[in-house]
Amino acid sequence: MVVKVYGPDAAAPKRVLECLIEKGVEFRTVTIDHFKGEHKAPEYLKLQPFGSVPAVQDGDYTLFESRAIISYYAEKYKRQGTDLLGKTIEERGLVEQWLEVEAQNFHPPIFDLVLKIVFGPELPPAAQRERDKLCKVLDIYEEMLSKSKYLAGDFVSLADLSHLPFTQYLVGKMGKEYLIRDRKHVSAWWDDISSRPSWKKVLELWPGQY
Amino acid sequence: MVVKVYGPDAAAPKRVLECLIEKGVEFRTVTIDHFKGEHKAPEYLKLQPFGSVPAVQDGDYTLFESRAIISYYAEKYKRQGTDLLGKTIEERGLVEQWLEVEAQNFHPPIFDLVLKIVFGPELPPAAQRERDKLCKVLDIYEEMLSKSKYLAGDFVSLADLSHLPFTQYLVGKMGKEYLIRDRKHVSAWWDDISSRPSWKKVLELWPGQY
Repeated sequence: MVVKVYGPDAAAPKRVLECLIEKGVEFRTVTIDHFKGEHKAPEYLKLQPFGSVPAVQDGDYTLFESRAIISYYAEKYKRQGTDLLGKTIEERGLVEQWLEVEAQNFHPPIFDLVLKIVFGPELPPAAQRERDKLCKVLDIYEEMLSKSKYLAGDFVSLADLSHLPFTQYLVGKMGKEYLIRDRKHVSAWWDDISSRPSWKKVLELWPGQY
Repeated sequence: MVVKVYGPDAAAPKRVLECLIEKGVEFRTVTIDHFKGEHKAPEYLKLQPFGSVPAVQDGDYTLFESRAIISYYAEKYKRQGTDLLGKTIEERGLVEQWLEVEAQNFHPPIFDLVLKIVFGPELPPAAQRERDKLCKVLDIYEEMLSKSKYLAGDFVSLADLSHLPFTQYLVGKMGKEYLIRDRKHVSAWWDDISSRPSWKKVLELWPGQY
């Protein structure tokens, strides 16, 4: 069964594309045109009641929320492709911990920065506040990444890869690469994860991001 | 090894306490006094670099982020106490989906409402906006809960229980119980999960919430 991934041009679905490529899972993409309101169309809302992307359809099984989808496929194909959950239950706990840090600490300020800088006129004081919040998170990453190569330990995991889509905005369109480069270990970590062939393929095939 | 849970008086750590009681895991709690700044003390920051609660210490292993901690213990003690991850890998996918919905869609507006109504003077227009966002989420829950007894299917899971601490605020201190009671299926679901002996025990032992 070929997995159908909805919304490949947006940022969050790229977490899913990246993971499926790492795991060697066959998939095809279905474009959801936000400008035509396709994410709010009744057929799409049956798959994703909140009207956001991504969603996946895998035979009769459907799933949404990017971090839940990648956890499902990393578990389902544990022995195929890159192991992204760690080898022990304790390593998996740390993967989930950093995946949750990405969702709760890293994502909110970087998402607000994207909204303000990429999609709206930059409002200096407000954007400054979000940038400061993001800097505090990156300072803690710097400390952690001085002790281990990746966030959950010396193995790459879903937690690292989950950072790719929005950090790509930061170093690209947003012109804020210095936030990464100013931090030695974060910088090396970013070079490592963003140079994975899977991520290069994602950006080559679906260069659009919103 | 007895699990040490830091910060039992705050809301998010109650996710962990609730889960450990459901799983029959022995633990003890360590108070973190926010008013004395104990969450920013150097020893605590070694456990939780962001200075928030909860964190757990289990022998040499430490973990933070409440949803990661409950996932770890639900997996580690899969065959002990209530099974909170579903029976199949597909059910677990749905548990993770709704756990992520709780984290991404439900938590941000309810957390902002708590900040504005419980900890600050209520600012009607701002609180109104957050309440409207929360209502939209609850409307989707109402639709989902008309099809299955719990969020991930006809079995209780981490996804349901993860809603307890902040919904308890809503129906308690915040005087917004009508947001739950106006929705027939959400109301029945709330009665079901909040009447679990484990949750009653959490509130009895740690009635404080912030």
